[in-house]
Amino acid sequence: MEQNFIEIAKNAKQASLKIADLSTEIKNLALNKIADAFEKNKEEIFSANKKDLSEAEDLVKNGEITKSTFNRLKLDENKMRDMIQGVRDIANLEDPIGKKLFVRELDKDLILTKVSCPIGVLGIIFEARPDVISQISSLAIKSSNAVILKGGKESKNTNKKILEIINSTLDTVDGFPKNVVQQVFTREDVAQMLKCDNYINLIIPRGGNKLVKYIKENTKIPVLGHASGICHIFVDESADIDMASKVVIDAKTQYPSACNAVETLLIHKNFKKADDLLASLQLSEIKLVSNPEAWDIEYGDKILAYKFVDSLDEAINHINTYGSGHTDCIITKDIKNAEKFMNNVDSAGVYMNASTRFADGFRYGFGAEVGISTNKTHARGPVGLEGLTIYKYKLVGDGHIVDDYAKGVKQFHHKDLA
Amino acid sequence: MEQNFIEIAKNAKQASLKIADLSTEIKNLALNKIADAFEKNKEEIFSANKKDLSEAEDLVKNGEITKSTFNRLKLDENKMRDMIQGVRDIANLEDPIGKKLFVRELDKDLILTKVSCPIGVLGIIFEARPDVISQISSLAIKSSNAVILKGGKESKNTNKKILEIINSTLDTVDGFPKNVVQQVFTREDVAQMLKCDNYINLIIPRGGNKLVKYIKENTKIPVLGHASGICHIFVDESADIDMASKVVIDAKTQYPSACNAVETLLIHKNFKKADDLLASLQLSEIKLVSNPEAWDIEYGDKILAYKFVDSLDEAINHINTYGSGHTDCIITKDIKNAEKFMNNVDSAGVYMNASTRFADGFRYGFGAEVGISTNKTHARGPVGLEGLTIYKYKLVGDGHIVDDYAKGVKQFHHKDLA
Repeated sequence: MEQNFIEIAKNAKQASLKIADLSTEIKNLALNKIADAFEKNKEEIFSANKKDLSEAEDLVKNGEITKSTFNRLKLDENKMRDMIQGVRDIANLEDPIGKKLFVRELDKDLILTKVSCPIGVLGIIFEARPDVISQISSLAIKSSNAVILKGGKESKNTNKKILEIINSTLDTVDGFPKNVVQQVFTREDVAQMLKCDNYINLIIPRGGNKLVKYIKENTKIPVLGHASGICHIFVDESADIDMASKVVIDAKTQYPSACNAVETLLIHKNFKKADDLLASLQLSEIKLVSNPEAWDIEYGDKILAYKFVDSLDEAINHINTYGSGHTDCIITKDIKNAEKFMNNVDSAGVYMNASTRFADGFRYGFGAEVGISTNKTHARGPVGLEGLTIYKYKLVGDGHIVDDYAKGVKQFHHKDLA
Repeated sequence: MEQNFIEIAKNAKQASLKIADLSTEIKNLALNKIADAFEKNKEEIFSANKKDLSEAEDLVKNGEITKSTFNRLKLDENKMRDMIQGVRDIANLEDPIGKKLFVRELDKDLILTKVSCPIGVLGIIFEARPDVISQISSLAIKSSNAVILKGGKESKNTNKKILEIINSTLDTVDGFPKNVVQQVFTREDVAQMLKCDNYINLIIPRGGNKLVKYIKENTKIPVLGHASGICHIFVDESADIDMASKVVIDAKTQYPSACNAVETLLIHKNFKKADDLLASLQLSEIKLVSNPEAWDIEYGDKILAYKFVDSLDEAINHINTYGSGHTDCIITKDIKNAEKFMNNVDSAGVYMNASTRFADGFRYGFGAEVGISTNKTHARGPVGLEGLTIYKYKLVGDGHIVDDYAKGVKQFHHKDLA
C-alpha cells in the first residue's frame, strides 16, 4: 500500500524539525554506518541493479531510452566504490549547520547571533543515475534537511534497494528521527510535490533540459538548478594560439555532454591565428558550425558554433544575450580586457584562460555538489552543502523592550563580537 | 505616451548590466546628489504630495482607503528629513558589491575568487508610503541593481515627482547609466511584471498580506518578503513576571500594526503568576482572546490571543504549526529551555527575553532595510543590502584544462588564500 503524497510531505516536515537540531556526531555516525551498510550489502544492490538493467535492455531496443541513459543506469564495482567513498567524504566535511555567521552586541546584554540552519524539506527529482540517491541523501543528512526523492523509473529497483538500506541503517542510529529520507515513484507524486509549497521548501531537479524546464514552469517552490548550459569561449585579439586551441579542445571534447562544455566560440576579428585555431579544432574531431540555426543550442556533442566579433563589447553582449548564465571564458593576454569581460559577463562562472569544464563543486574544492545553479538568488554556480542552508537570527536579551529605544532612553551601539 | 512594459523591462536589464560594474565613488556621488536635489526641490515634492492628499481625502470619505493609509501617504517636514537622511545613510554604508567572499588557489596559477555581485533587475511593488520610492531607489543604486517601481495609485503624484528628481539628478552624474530607476503605474503593468521572468530577477512586495499573497501566487520570479507576521511569546514556567509583562506589553502595544508585533501568547500551565500577567496586559488596554476563531490571525491591533500549554514541546509545536516563521520569543530563566526553543522553533527570529519588535534591519545594525523575509532561501529575517546581492565565481588560469586533472597529470591542492 502506497502512502499518499501529502502524508509523506507532512512526515518530511516533522522530520525536518527534528533533524534541525541533531548533533554533528550523530549525523556523521549515521553517514558512516550507511557507507558500511552499502559495503556489506553491495551484492543485493548489484542484483537489484541487474533487474533494472535487464528491463532497460528492452527499452533500449524499443528506442524508449538511449544507450547513454542505459550506461548511466549501470552500477559497477568502480561506481559502487565511488558511491560508498562519496558518503564517507560527506561525513568528513565540516558541518554546515550551527555556524555563527556573526555575533553582534546591539546594546548591553542584548546579543544578536546569525546562525546557519537547514532549509527544511528538499524535493529532489532526478533521472537515471542511481548513485544520486545515495549522494543526495547523504547531503541532506549532513545539512540537517529532510528529503523526498523521486528517481527515474528505469532505476526503480536499485533506488528502492539503496533507500531500504539507508533507512534500515538510520533506524539503528540512536536519536535519529524517522522519515528524514523518503522516496516516491510516480508522475502523480511529482505533480503533487510541485504543488506542495506548504511542506516543501526547495526543489532540486537533476536531469536534462526538458525535465528542469517542466519543473520550473510548474511550481511556486524555489527551484535550484540549471535548465541549460550554453557556455562560451571568447578568443581575444591578443590570445595565444596554443592556449586557445588547448582550452577550447578541452572545453568541447573532454566530456561533450556535460553542462559546462563549451557550445559557442567567439573570435575577435583581429585575432591573426583564427584559421590555425579552427583547423586545430577540426583535427580534434570537432564539427564547426558557422551558421547555426540559433545561438543558444546546447549540442551536448563534439559540435561547436563559432562567430567572428568586432570587439570585446560585442562578445560580452552576445554572451549576455544568448548565454545561459552558466560559465563563460575569455582567452587573452590583456588583463584589462579580461577584467572587463569578467565584470560584465553576467554568468555564474567568468573565466580567464581556463577551460569551462572547471565549473564543478569538486574542482572548486566544495567536497560535494548538489548541482550547478544558474539562479540569481540563493545559490549560484556549483552548489555545495552551503547551498542547502539558510540562517536564523537568535536574540538573547534581559527583558529588553523596543519602547526604550524609540523614546531615546537607551541607544543601540552595534558592536561586532565575532 | 506610456512605454510598454516589455520595453521598460528590457531597458532595465540593459541598465543592470551597465550598473553592475560601476565604481563605489560614482554610486555614492549619485546618492549624495539625489539627497541634495531632494533638499533643493522639497517644496515641489510637498506640493505634489498635497495634490495626492486632496484626492485621497475623497477616497477616505468614500471609505475606499483607511485613515491610516491616508496618514502614511502624508509627507511632512519630519518624514522629508528622514527620507533625505536615509539616502545619505545608504551612501555611507559599505559597498556590498565586489567583496571577495573567498580566494582559493585550486592549483598553481589557477585562482578561484568568489565575488559578490548584483542580482540584476528588481521589481518592487509597494503601497501608499511615498518615502519607499526614495529608499528602494537608493538601495538599488548602492547594490548596483536596476529597479522597476510600482507604487500605490494614491501616491502617484508624489512618486512621479520624486522619481523625476532622482532621474534628472542621475542624468548629471558622469558615467551613470540610463534606466536604472524606472516607474510603472497600472495594474496591467504589475500583471506583466509578474510574468516577466526573462528580465526581472527578484520581486519585493512591500505592503499588506493580500498584496503579498497575490504576488506570491501569481509569479514564477523569486519573491522576497512576508505575507504575514504571526509572532508568539511563550512564557515559560520559570519566567519572571515583571519581565514577561514588560516584554509582552512592548511587543503588543509599541506599534500594534507592525508585522513583528506579537499576536499569540502561550503560557506554561505551571507558570504561577499567569493571572497577574493577564491582569497587567488588560491594564495596558490589551484585549485578550482565549478562544480565537483561528490561531493564525494577524490582529494588527491591541488584541492578543492566549493559550495555556502543558510543556515547552507543546509551545514549540504550536508555533511551528500556526506561526508564520517571522519572530518568536521565549521568556524564561532556564537557559536549556531557551536553547531548545531557539533551536527548534523554525522562524527567522528566535528570541530569549526580548521583545519581538526588535526584528528590524536598523535595530539589527544593517543601516538600511529592504524588508523582512519569511522565505527559507536566499535571505531570511530583516534584509539589508546583502539581500540584494548574489555572487559570481571568477577563475583565472594560465591555459589550464580539466583533462590534465582527469588523467592524474595534475592534482588540485585547494589552498585558501583569503
